[in-house]
Amino acid sequence: MSLSEARNIIEDFKAVDFRNGRLVLIDQRELPGRLVYTEISSSEETADAIRDMIVRGAPAIGGAAGYGTYLAAVEAGSDKELFRRKCGHLIAARPTAVNLSWAVNRLKSLYEKGASSEELLAEADLIIREDEEMNRQMGAFGSTVIRDGATILTHCNAGALATCGWGTALGVIKSAYQEGKDIFVYADETRPRLQGARLTAWELMRAGIPSALIPDSAAATLIRDGKIDCIILGADRIAANGDVANKLGTFALSVVAKAYGVPFYSAAPTSTIDISTQTGKDIEIEERDPREVTEIEGVRIAPEGMKVYNPCFDVTPHQNITGIITEKGIIYPPFDVNIARIMTER
Amino acid sequence: MSLSEARNIIEDFKAVDFRNGRLVLIDQRELPGRLVYTEISSSEETADAIRDMIVRGAPAIGGAAGYGTYLAAVEAGSDKELFRRKCGHLIAARPTAVNLSWAVNRLKSLYEKGASSEELLAEADLIIREDEEMNRQMGAFGSTVIRDGATILTHCNAGALATCGWGTALGVIKSAYQEGKDIFVYADETRPRLQGARLTAWELMRAGIPSALIPDSAAATLIRDGKIDCIILGADRIAANGDVANKLGTFALSVVAKAYGVPFYSAAPTSTIDISTQTGKDIEIEERDPREVTEIEGVRIAPEGMKVYNPCFDVTPHQNITGIITEKGIIYPPFDVNIARIMTER
Repeated sequence: MSLSEARNIIEDFKAVDFRNGRLVLIDQRELPGRLVYTEISSSEETADAIRDMIVRGAPAIGGAAGYGTYLAAVEAGSDKELFRRKCGHLIAARPTAVNLSWAVNRLKSLYEKGASSEELLAEADLIIREDEEMNRQMGAFGSTVIRDGATILTHCNAGALATCGWGTALGVIKSAYQEGKDIFVYADETRPRLQGARLTAWELMRAGIPSALIPDSAAATLIRDGKIDCIILGADRIAANGDVANKLGTFALSVVAKAYGVPFYSAAPTSTIDISTQTGKDIEIEERDPREVTEIEGVRIAPEGMKVYNPCFDVTPHQNITGIITEKGIIYPPFDVNIARIMTER
Repeated sequence: MSLSEARNIIEDFKAVDFRNGRLVLIDQRELPGRLVYTEISSSEETADAIRDMIVRGAPAIGGAAGYGTYLAAVEAGSDKELFRRKCGHLIAARPTAVNLSWAVNRLKSLYEKGASSEELLAEADLIIREDEEMNRQMGAFGSTVIRDGATILTHCNAGALATCGWGTALGVIKSAYQEGKDIFVYADETRPRLQGARLTAWELMRAGIPSALIPDSAAATLIRDGKIDCIILGADRIAANGDVANKLGTFALSVVAKAYGVPFYSAAPTSTIDISTQTGKDIEIEERDPREVTEIEGVRIAPEGMKVYNPCFDVTPHQNITGIITEKGIIYPPFDVNIARIMTER
């Protein structure tokens, strides 16, 4: 089979943008039904948008928070005390996303050094550009593991909507398609919040990539029957030994993939690797609101009073992982050694 | 730990009942929100109720079809041609459920031999009684694999609502609880139709059994972390070699259970064993309406036009199964030999 012509995926939407002095966010709660942009003109509203999940996905939250911090500086002027309070308010919007405090603190330290508001805005723009650039590099490295004609399985949403552009795992898949590889993508719907059905399916259709949505439970049979060439998904936190915390459902996929010899890749920038976390056992797993399981679109689907266990993430042991795709290249086992090496590279 | 006092689970509902000349069904589409009974007084309405899934679960469908055939005989009187047409209409309501044609044909052959309408009604009652009795026997055998203090994982609904009383897999669990064992049950929500969230959770709460609902993807971590003592679920069809076709999601659970050494049981009457089916490869897997995945309660959760792959069942290879719990005892490996033996027993 000869490679198709290179394609050009034009991404005509941005999860996070800044135009005419306003932060412009896609309201992701409205997808896939409607593509609605929300304009935000204060740091207070930015914090609300992050808390209410108008914007979600750690890198996208970081991008929005950069502009929120710029807006805080404009609002506070030279009142440092007020500025710091506004920064604290932004960081408190969602306490678990590392990128949020990282982005706020990046602009805050410039403000403290006396940067002008123009310089702060330029820095917020830079966060966005850097993130998309990293994702494009990740895509170039990652697409080398995708052969022409491959069928790829992904889980949750690690695409342009979760980042400041292109995406991590879905970015890798888009890069392969853009290079002209004829691929097919199965997207897990990803219960309970259905990011696969709502967001990944939307991005795949928009990019024109041949694909199908499946209930999470259908992936195992596809893997066993040799219908999946590789699995590529994101990561929320990677430990020093290569254990990966990611969206609930990742671990089960990794067990089936290992049992049937299907390559399993995690795609994430090196900023997701936390070398202070020794192993996956040290990662605390956030438990989420039971209503994510008992209600859909406000309609109850489980009896009143039923207990629920709803962990947000699970941990995949490094033994189940073929490689970790980063903006600096693909990390292979032994992960502890190779992660330490890549993290100390300049 | 000493065993608690034996308990008495009073099952104050019946998926299928017959009172005052009418078939009385729980409208399972209304659960768990409302417990609504529908009264049916014709064979035509019985066929509608089966097709519209007011009643579901192969044994429960069989029970309803028995009464539907009795009603057809009353309606047709001595007009054999009319009676046969009505029987054909009932059988066509859902072509895949074996119990449906089995129950209709059971009463039909009596009618052809000149049985009175009283005799036909008695036969329809007998189908119900036999089914519940088999489930109680299955419960007695099956509960021996559940230790006091055990935590059990189940999937989909194989309870009283799916049968003519007590249930298969959920019947086994109820039997253990009734014997005084202090158990805890995790119920998979079971996407896409959510029978776990809607029906199993309802039955567990009604029986007072301590339990929690989980997204299907949460089961793997519980299994790995040693929090599940055994997995018990139903079967839609069992091949001669012990391969089990069951609700989508069963196979993935079996792979994780095997990887982490957790016992995995299928509970089903021997009528579910189809010795003419050699292996699971010979079982055709029904694909269901994409809207089961793209819509919930009539609300779209995936973009318009997105392709869907939605298989209803999957096949678990016998190598992943610890035992098959039947009304005649528990079948252990080698399954081919032991299934042949139990199926030829009188």
